[in-house]
Formats: sequence, structure tokens, C-alpha cells
Amino acid sequence: MRGLVFNAPGDVAVTDVPDPGIVNPGDAVVRVTKAGICGSDMHIYNHGDAFGFDAGCRLGHEFVGVVEAVGPDVTSVRPGDRIVAPFWLSCGECHFCKKGLPTSCISGGCFGFQAFWGFGGAVEGGQSEFVRVPMADGTLVKVPDELSDVDDHVLLPLVDVFTTAYHAAKGSGVGPGQTALVVGDGAVGLLACQAARLLGAERVVLAGHHDDRLAIGTRLGATHSVNTKPGNERLGELLGDLTGSYGPDVVIDAISSADSLAYAANTVQPGGTISWVGMEVFLAAPQLPWDLCFLRNLTIRGGVAPVRRYLPDLWPLVASGALDPSPVLTHDMPLEDAAEGYTVMATRAEGSVKVCLTP
Amino acid sequence: MRGLVFNAPGDVAVTDVPDPGIVNPGDAVVRVTKAGICGSDMHIYNHGDAFGFDAGCRLGHEFVGVVEAVGPDVTSVRPGDRIVAPFWLSCGECHFCKKGLPTSCISGGCFGFQAFWGFGGAVEGGQSEFVRVPMADGTLVKVPDELSDVDDHVLLPLVDVFTTAYHAAKGSGVGPGQTALVVGDGAVGLLACQAARLLGAERVVLAGHHDDRLAIGTRLGATHSVNTKPGNERLGELLGDLTGSYGPDVVIDAISSADSLAYAANTVQPGGTISWVGMEVFLAAPQLPWDLCFLRNLTIRGGVAPVRRYLPDLWPLVASGALDPSPVLTHDMPLEDAAEGYTVMATRAEGSVKVCLTP
Repeated sequence: MRGLVFNAPGDVAVTDVPDPGIVNPGDAVVRVTKAGICGSDMHIYNHGDAFGFDAGCRLGHEFVGVVEAVGPDVTSVRPGDRIVAPFWLSCGECHFCKKGLPTSCISGGCFGFQAFWGFGGAVEGGQSEFVRVPMADGTLVKVPDELSDVDDHVLLPLVDVFTTAYHAAKGSGVGPGQTALVVGDGAVGLLACQAARLLGAERVVLAGHHDDRLAIGTRLGATHSVNTKPGNERLGELLGDLTGSYGPDVVIDAISSADSLAYAANTVQPGGTISWVGMEVFLAAPQLPWDLCFLRNLTIRGGVAPVRRYLPDLWPLVASGALDPSPVLTHDMPLEDAAEGYTVMATRAEGSVKVCLTP
Repeated sequence: MRGLVFNAPGDVAVTDVPDPGIVNPGDAVVRVTKAGICGSDMHIYNHGDAFGFDAGCRLGHEFVGVVEAVGPDVTSVRPGDRIVAPFWLSCGECHFCKKGLPTSCISGGCFGFQAFWGFGGAVEGGQSEFVRVPMADGTLVKVPDELSDVDDHVLLPLVDVFTTAYHAAKGSGVGPGQTALVVGDGAVGLLACQAARLLGAERVVLAGHHDDRLAIGTRLGATHSVNTKPGNERLGELLGDLTGSYGPDVVIDAISSADSLAYAANTVQPGGTISWVGMEVFLAAPQLPWDLCFLRNLTIRGGVAPVRRYLPDLWPLVASGALDPSPVLTHDMPLEDAAEGYTVMATRAEGSVKVCLTP
């Protein structure tokens, strides 16, 4: 079959790769119908080994599809079922899975022995025609029958980019009557606007550097947006006007650089929360402004989204039409053109936010 | 009158200072009956200017006493009332005071124009016979009449050191059935054990370097204690045994150094909270282990205690005897001997935790 391989920073290619099959009795094989290129794929694409990905790795941890085959122990899905695949593997049975934190699953999760798609081991990447899924009962989630008419473009963001944004919004504690500042106009930032509104935020101010993306943010629910490329002055004035100079109740930081975190710590209202989900911290660990955090009583919260925990809450919103995150999928390209898709995202081509691939 | 003056690092002296009086119509003058020496006084004593205190400053931000005189605008207290004085001034009327965050009071609080006792301006330190209290209605809290028999030693810790510990325990979110690790056996760490138990923690593990203090922690409610001076191995084993290897639900870090925060981030259960209230961050800002925080979904929360918010919850506990934080007051010395009291605390003399002064 065909699948995407990471060769070196800036170099990915779709090539012939081995067909996956059932290896263990808990495995499934999924036929991928849509696969996303994620912002964290771009970090791997740009920096490779900084994220532990070596040449020859298979990328792609966002995909939806149809179950092709299952091992004898799999009970929750069967061939022909439409599924979504949360972006970390999980057993479904351990202490952390039962607590609703499958990203800390002892067998899968962030520190598990088979954790993430495409690290080059037995679990390969989802930017492929087919994928083997270990621990299928704990990992795959069957799409409810009442969503059978919902397009893959609506479902695909639920496996990572929307749920990451939703996790950030939940973690911020934003609620009715409140003002949220969302920093960053990548897909997670844009969808954090949507998530914050779904959680009741009265005002959502989106700050980014791209007018085309800010427009998508407005479509998704941002009540205000500011292009901060020239500087933060206009943003500061707007937040002052909206909050009586006290600052937003929460900041959702979808960048998480030294600059964005310092701005958040200076800007969020005392007693507020900075909810961070950006990957910049992995590239250049920022210094937390401890003095501000202490004197202003700030909460700093971030983490990988426990996707499975949220899906039961999200299905009804998708069914009713209240949640449609598909506007961030600005490009849909054949899997064969994946290298071009990476270039679109790497260059932040005008009008682009996120590329999905169709095998 | 007599009052304590900071001359230089390691040098404080009780000397003749001007009698305070009513300056503004909202002022009160308080006759101090007990004043504490706080761990943060020791940071000033040891490092002086690192905390913005210059030679000639008057120290002391923990005191209880009796109202001596009030200005014409003061309505909540009158001469003869027994009061406690939370450790930041607050107006009682602004956005943040009304929200229960008087430490961010716009007129007082951490960034206010008259904020903290003893910065050398009009508001002098509490390690004195008398203190002028601006914004007395928003700052002083009258001790309820039903506590008239309660000793000053029980009340004094409520103005800072116990409420700081309680704030840390509240911020950690610890509750029934849970395990808390408390790092640090200074007064705040010891009282955090008491606070965590009051909030329902089932197991409180205290880690420190002084057997005599650990014994006080046990008396205050720690269910387990470990002297970690030789290393963290025994602590790690104990936490593993107590939590099925998952780690404590929360860590209350009363040190907040690079080492303690790294240990907390590695040790707290995924999805848990590190609640920090130590002052070490002000001396050598630690690098937050962002990767662990992200992959383990940690919450980092710290801040100055909004004492007034908690007092209404604490008075009944004091009245019933459920809360007696006085065991941390190991020494009571005449105000005239304050320099010796600072030496006791600076040298961590055997059997000492905290010194209070009687004018």
C-alpha cells in the first residue's frame, strides 16, 4: 500500500510501504478515509529529531476511517464500522483510562510502550491507506449511527485539533459571562474560539498574524479579532475596553512561546488561568514569570487532550449542527500529493490553515 | 514607641521610632499584641534588596492586636476591638476585593500604591508597639465575639502563615480520599498538612529535613513523614506504596525551588496539581519542566493568600477547636529581643519553627 515517510527535515514522501495486518488479538486494521496534517506534524517536518522522530518514520496521527479487519479479542468495533482514532493509543482498562485520562494510559498514552502513531515501531502513521491499531477496543471510537450522514471533514478535527482546543478551553475554566483571549491563529487557536463559545464564553478575542485566518476564527465564534503582527497595542486597548481594564478572565495560549506566555501572564486577570497547548515550549522552553504568577494568583495548565473523555459530550453537538470544526480544513488533497500538502502548511500559504489527505 | 528596623542583611534592631497616628479619615491605629516573624521576613533579612526592602525599612506583616484609634470614616472596627490584620492592605470595595481577591486590590494588594507593611513609606511594619493601618475597613478583620477566649497564639497564624498554607491546599484541589505530598517543613509546609486534612485529604505525606519539625507536622495532621535529607529514595518508595505507584493526587510545594518543582512534576499523578507557595522562585527562578507538565497534564498554581476570603470559613473551625495552628509558634519573645528571634529563625535553631514577638 501507499504511506507517507519522513526522510529528513523538510523532506517527506509517499511511497510503497508494507500492508498492515492483525498482529495481536486486540488489533484492528483501519482503512483510512481522511488523514490530517497536524501542527505537530509540522514540528516534526521542520525539526525531526527534536521530537524523537528519525528518518524512515511514518507520520500521521489524525485519521478517520472504516474498520477493515479485527483480531479475535476485539469487541467494540467490527469490520465496516466507521471510526475515529484519538491521537494516542490507550488500553481502556487501566487506572488512567478509567479516570478519563487515556493520554496517561499505562500501556499506551504518553509514556506507554506503544503510544503514538508513527514512531517507527509496530504502530505506523495514519497518513497511509491502512493502519494497524493495537488495543483497538481502548483506542478506536465508533461513530454513532445517528451521525452516519456527517461528513468526514466534520469528524476528522475531533481526533485531535478540535479536542485539543476543547481541552484548552475546558482547562481554562471559561464560562458564561466571561472574556477569553485566544493567542494564535493556527487551527487549534481558531477552534479554541469555537470551543470557548460552546462553553459559554461571552467574548472571545482572537489574536493572530494572518487576516485570512482571523476571518475563519470569526466564522467559528470569535467575537473580536486583532492582527498583532505590528504589535500588541491594539490588542491591549481592546482588552482594556472589553474588561474594564482588568484583563480577560482566561488566556488560551495556542502558541506557548516565551513571548506569548509572558504576554498572557501580564494580561490575564488576577486569579485567572493561562491554558496552554502550543508546542513552542518543546523547542525553546520559556521562563515562566514566577513573580507575576505568584503576585497575580495565576493558574498555568496545559496538556495533551484526552480525546475519548470528550467525545460523548461532542457527538450531540455534531448531530445538532452546533459543532462543525471543518472550516479549518482549508485544503483536501490526494494522499499522493502529501508532500505538497506539507509545503502548503510549512509556507503558511495564503488561505491555508490545515490540509487533509484522502488516500 | 519601639519598633523593629531592617538595617542591612543580617542586621535588624528594635529602636525608637515615631508614634503612628491617624493620617487619613479611613485609618486606624492598632496596638500590637503579637507579631510574627515570617519566612518571607527571613528572605528580607537574608537578602534585603532582592525583595525591594532598603536599609531603614520597618519589618513585620503578621500581627494581631487591639484597635487603639480610628479615623472618622472607619465603620467596621472601633477602639477596643480585637482584630487580625491580613498581610496585604485592601480597600474592600474594588473589583478584586469584591471578587474575593484582596491581594489584587487596586488600591492595596500586590500592585497597589499602599500595599504592604513596612516598605518604608507611610505604612510601617507590624513588629512594633503600634501600627497605622490605612483603609482599615477593607484591611482589618474584627475577631468574632465568640472567639474572645481564644489565645493570640491561635489567631496570629491566621493572618498569613496558616492562610497561605490553606490557600495552597485549596489551590491544590485536594479532597476526600486523596493523597497529598507536602514538600517543606517550614511553618507553611507544616500547616499545609493541617489544611489538607481539614479539606478532607486521606493521606498527607510531609517531606522535610528536620526531624523536630516533622514531628510537629505529624501533630498537625500529616499521616506520614519522611526526612529527605539523605535523598528522596524513601519518599519515592512510600509514595509508591501509598498510591499504587501512580503518585500523589496533588503536591503542595512550600519550597518552590528548581529541585522541589522538578520533583513535584515527576511525582504528582498525571492530571494532578502542583500548588506552590514557596519564595525560592524569587531568588532563583526555576525552569518549569514544560514537557512533563504537558505530557502529564499538570496544573501549576500558586499565589499570595487572599486571607480575608478564608476567614469566614476558618472562624467556626477555631471556635470548635478543629483548627489550632499555634504549634508552629515555637518561640514567644519580647519585642525587645526581636534581633535574637531573627537569629533563631536564620539558624533554624533546634526545636524552632517560628518566632512570635510580644511588644
